[in-house]
Amino acid sequence: MSTPDLATTSLDLPAIRGRVDVVLSAFLEEKAREAAADSHPAVVTAFLRNFLFSGGKRLRPLLCVIGWHAAGGHGIPAPTVRVAASLEMFHAFALIHDDLMDDSATRRGRPAVHRAFADRHRTGRSGASADRLGRSAAILIGDVALVWSDELLHTAGLRPGRLARVLPLIDTMRTEVMYGQCLDLLATGRPTANTAHALAIARCKTAKYTVERPLHIGAALAGAGPAFRALLSDYALPLGDAFQLRDDLLGVYGDPAVTGKSRLDDLRDGKHTTLVALALERADRAQRRVLRTLLGNPDLDERGAGRIRRLLAETGAHATVEQLIQSRCAQAEQALDHDAFPAAARTVLRGLAREAAVRTA
Amino acid sequence: MSTPDLATTSLDLPAIRGRVDVVLSAFLEEKAREAAADSHPAVVTAFLRNFLFSGGKRLRPLLCVIGWHAAGGHGIPAPTVRVAASLEMFHAFALIHDDLMDDSATRRGRPAVHRAFADRHRTGRSGASADRLGRSAAILIGDVALVWSDELLHTAGLRPGRLARVLPLIDTMRTEVMYGQCLDLLATGRPTANTAHALAIARCKTAKYTVERPLHIGAALAGAGPAFRALLSDYALPLGDAFQLRDDLLGVYGDPAVTGKSRLDDLRDGKHTTLVALALERADRAQRRVLRTLLGNPDLDERGAGRIRRLLAETGAHATVEQLIQSRCAQAEQALDHDAFPAAARTVLRGLAREAAVRTA
Repeated sequence: MSTPDLATTSLDLPAIRGRVDVVLSAFLEEKAREAAADSHPAVVTAFLRNFLFSGGKRLRPLLCVIGWHAAGGHGIPAPTVRVAASLEMFHAFALIHDDLMDDSATRRGRPAVHRAFADRHRTGRSGASADRLGRSAAILIGDVALVWSDELLHTAGLRPGRLARVLPLIDTMRTEVMYGQCLDLLATGRPTANTAHALAIARCKTAKYTVERPLHIGAALAGAGPAFRALLSDYALPLGDAFQLRDDLLGVYGDPAVTGKSRLDDLRDGKHTTLVALALERADRAQRRVLRTLLGNPDLDERGAGRIRRLLAETGAHATVEQLIQSRCAQAEQALDHDAFPAAARTVLRGLAREAAVRTA
Repeated sequence: MSTPDLATTSLDLPAIRGRVDVVLSAFLEEKAREAAADSHPAVVTAFLRNFLFSGGKRLRPLLCVIGWHAAGGHGIPAPTVRVAASLEMFHAFALIHDDLMDDSATRRGRPAVHRAFADRHRTGRSGASADRLGRSAAILIGDVALVWSDELLHTAGLRPGRLARVLPLIDTMRTEVMYGQCLDLLATGRPTANTAHALAIARCKTAKYTVERPLHIGAALAGAGPAFRALLSDYALPLGDAFQLRDDLLGVYGDPAVTGKSRLDDLRDGKHTTLVALALERADRAQRRVLRTLLGNPDLDERGAGRIRRLLAETGAHATVEQLIQSRCAQAEQALDHDAFPAAARTVLRGLAREAAVRTA
């Protein structure tokens, strides 16, 4: 075995994850101290800490650091780590509001923020009033995470000119994910056979937000321009599509003990996923009638979900989504065969593509 | 009449309001064009436009521009106007989420965003499902307004070093208002006789957010440091307190046709305002029992509200709040007697203090 060179060791993913977590933890500790000094409620920092440290793959921060490295950045300087951490704080905002909009009961195996907050404040309140308080608190705690993701970014220690170069990418990423969520929201409850629309939602809501923009932001920190960012997109967009397609499958077939999420919610909500669109497209009249009755039914139980899963198999929708994931991941891997990418970046990006193809959580 | 000098004409408040609105309108038009080009839903920009242009005093943008001028800024350059506009976009976010948390039916005389969105999407949905969609959309549209307030700021055309100097003030303002909202939320439904706590909520949620920080941000754009900002605070904080105290009165006594808001909501929600805290503090046992029964009752009608208003008068709470407003406004005016302030700034700030004392909307 050869001696590891600097480029390889600098992409030690668990070590990067560790450094991101140190930044997040120290930031929240400082915020908790300030809150105590100003007589502000401690509950905001406490809930954000619980949320951030109950799990999460830290995928966006990792991709940000990999993007930095891919574009020729040396080592992993503190400002890059802090920008990466700001993406995780933004993601906490997105998940807290998403869980509220979907009324998800759990996240990362624990009660979602709106549920946990309501449960902690039931004493002396009616059930409805505690639930309403929980929903309001989740709106606010999500808002705080968004505002603090900005603060992490602003205090990253970037030179002003460097910060000014990254801000447009941050703004674009945020607008894209909001529109993706909006498309998702408008389509939920009334899924159709329109596969192209389901793929467009996934592109906007996940592929760009989760993979492409974090890589772009990291690359921009290292000075990369539009041409290099386009090379990263050739990898990021098919991989991001695959990531969402896998998420769609896990939302129906995943093991809640592993994913930390219900496997009934997407079906109960009537999410317009590629999986469901394909099934509706290929179903015969009788199958379509059954799907239409069951999808979006808030009282759907495991038995009904079992019927949907059989139809997803019978129509070939499940198998097709698996094939789409494999081909998208292969496409992402191919995009890495380019001299512009340093070997270490290529290695970890290839690993992420393979992991995305088969992940179970 | 003397010839108006430049300093006076540059603080023509209606003209500043007009320029802020032109920026907001052009920004949303550009966003609508981009959305159309990217097949994103048009509903987001449409709702934000409706919200922003259905009213609003533009108080925060005005104070930002006045702060710029007070600190010696010349004219009203485009970047200053755009930063001012970003404060109004942030305020749209705050109000949209606030209305959702309070479940307010109307804002600026029109249905609140969550209600309007639900009403527009009832076809083919159950009532509960349309209401849920409306709530989710209001979360998202508010989030978009927050993200776009950032984008307005980032694209204001400030030199990077100048932007870097303003960002910490923006971050502080946002954290403060979030904590203020959080304090408000936790106190709502269980008002007490704790007047100090009610005043602390008002300080955090309104005085700093609405008056102090906009002035500070404008002043920082003109290069002002902490010492000058402290002079502005001497004016801003008492005025901001008065502003919230007036809001508390309007929430109970205001004419909905003028305020655009219900005058039952605060009472039904059981808001912990200074007005209510004073009444609870001074009530005898029988009066307190009646107040405790009526405040926070979601089914409170005009008759019950009338009983509360009588008790607010009998306990002297109403009169005391009026006195507090007058003394706070006088204190704000006195703080203007300082050589550091240019005459034009002093004149408009004095006008705002007098207006705040007697406003009806």
